[in-house]
Amino acid sequence: MQLTILGCNAATPRKNAQTTAQLLDIKGQLVLIDCGEGTQMQLRKLGVKFARIQHIFISHLHGDHFYGLIGLISTFRLLGRSADLHIYGPKGIKEIITLQLKLAKSWTDYDLYFHELTSLDSELILDHEKFTVETLPLNHRVYTNGYLFREKTGPRKIDKVAVEKYVVDIADMENLKQGKDIIQSDGSILANQLLTLDPEPSKSYAFCSDTAYLPELAKRIQGVSSLYHEATFLDQHQDLAVKTKHSTAAEAAQIAATAEVNQLILGHFSSRYSDMNAFVLQAQRYFQNVHLAEDGKIFDL
Amino acid sequence: MQLTILGCNAATPRKNAQTTAQLLDIKGQLVLIDCGEGTQMQLRKLGVKFARIQHIFISHLHGDHFYGLIGLISTFRLLGRSADLHIYGPKGIKEIITLQLKLAKSWTDYDLYFHELTSLDSELILDHEKFTVETLPLNHRVYTNGYLFREKTGPRKIDKVAVEKYVVDIADMENLKQGKDIIQSDGSILANQLLTLDPEPSKSYAFCSDTAYLPELAKRIQGVSSLYHEATFLDQHQDLAVKTKHSTAAEAAQIAATAEVNQLILGHFSSRYSDMNAFVLQAQRYFQNVHLAEDGKIFDL
Repeated sequence: MQLTILGCNAATPRKNAQTTAQLLDIKGQLVLIDCGEGTQMQLRKLGVKFARIQHIFISHLHGDHFYGLIGLISTFRLLGRSADLHIYGPKGIKEIITLQLKLAKSWTDYDLYFHELTSLDSELILDHEKFTVETLPLNHRVYTNGYLFREKTGPRKIDKVAVEKYVVDIADMENLKQGKDIIQSDGSILANQLLTLDPEPSKSYAFCSDTAYLPELAKRIQGVSSLYHEATFLDQHQDLAVKTKHSTAAEAAQIAATAEVNQLILGHFSSRYSDMNAFVLQAQRYFQNVHLAEDGKIFDL
Repeated sequence: MQLTILGCNAATPRKNAQTTAQLLDIKGQLVLIDCGEGTQMQLRKLGVKFARIQHIFISHLHGDHFYGLIGLISTFRLLGRSADLHIYGPKGIKEIITLQLKLAKSWTDYDLYFHELTSLDSELILDHEKFTVETLPLNHRVYTNGYLFREKTGPRKIDKVAVEKYVVDIADMENLKQGKDIIQSDGSILANQLLTLDPEPSKSYAFCSDTAYLPELAKRIQGVSSLYHEATFLDQHQDLAVKTKHSTAAEAAQIAATAEVNQLILGHFSSRYSDMNAFVLQAQRYFQNVHLAEDGKIFDL
């Protein structure tokens, strides 16, 4: 899994400060998470072949998380896209997009599927061949979901030494990868474990933005490899965090610690701060492996 | 009048190629004409104090002319704007904007006025103390208006030498500026023309985008100081211009020549061209004083 931060700033796009958008590469599949204004320009600037995006997940209908979506949809049309595009997001997103397409008399030539979300409970919303996506209901001023991406476990790995030793037929290799035992010509059985190694452990990534401090979130993301959690504020603005239903860096770190994730990425920074190191320091009171999101930064998860 | 080109490219925003948006300074009043995605970032990049914008004119509801509007409206709210904001544009623009504000539960704290346009005839839509704005119905794939901005004539200028010679009371200066004659203490009349000079000639600016070649437009903009006319294509793509209801550089120049404007600014260039000089050359077959729009360029009109 590779995560590219396209934008990580709160509220309004500014010079060199894009609003929320992330590109996640899961085993070669590109998904876009949130889509603030100017996301398509960021994708071009970073040289991403963004026509490959087939799934877009929008957390909530505040502008800094989706005002770039209609432009991206239009650009796909102008570039002659034919592949389906799936949009996941709160109820209302379909009306916003289709109203604009209708008034512009600019229907897409490709199929556009809206998957509108209304549930307050976590749901499995995508079961792809290579990964799954579940919603993570958050607590914000409007209906909001985070998203949990889990790679599916890959095939078992052939143990080349063992395969040679036991003289396995080439035709059986696929069965071995699928975890099946081998029935030899004399009817005896060769156990799969003798011939294969465990596959790469599958990675998972939880995107949680925007949300007030939500302790019960930790249960839902227990043990994920990487967590992106919003950290709009520092301790000294705890009152603002409560009032606007955002989190502080320390609160994000407490979620990471309780959920025992491997690493925490902080983002959605308020523009009032210039010393970003304070986010790391305040988070590290609770959780050590903290990183800061930054526009254009790439994380190998 | 001063015109700042914020973006001048057709279809989709790209790296270093913003879509249509212009900032017009008329006697200190800032108006925004069209508002492609990323316009607010361009305004910041160019250091414009954009909170001063009170009137926004949208030509039509294709994305490259208005997808940045909702973001700008939201940013005004986040910056604590209290001044009224007036939006002029095709019917439907109010629904697009208010639907998004409603779903985000983010009503503006300032008053937002929509002036929706439906007429196929030219209308006077704003009679400001310092300028007027009329629509210029265009011929595009959706309902589209250009806009004609005319400065109002300023006060007459005091002729300092004459005023000294005739010993005019300071209290009469305002009357002189308004064009009135002076009644002296002996009852005799001093004609205004003796004491004042003509005011600066008032400037006018016509913004015409997007449109197919529309010869009757020339009548409506006869003698304007400056004309911005779209030139999406060059001669060799005349067929595309007809099909998509856009203009070529040569067609834009023919409008400028017939309307006897002072200068022509071309813009809305298709991304298929790299040699921009061809636009000037093809236009100059019909009209000499041609300039190319360029993102960030400022024209003193």
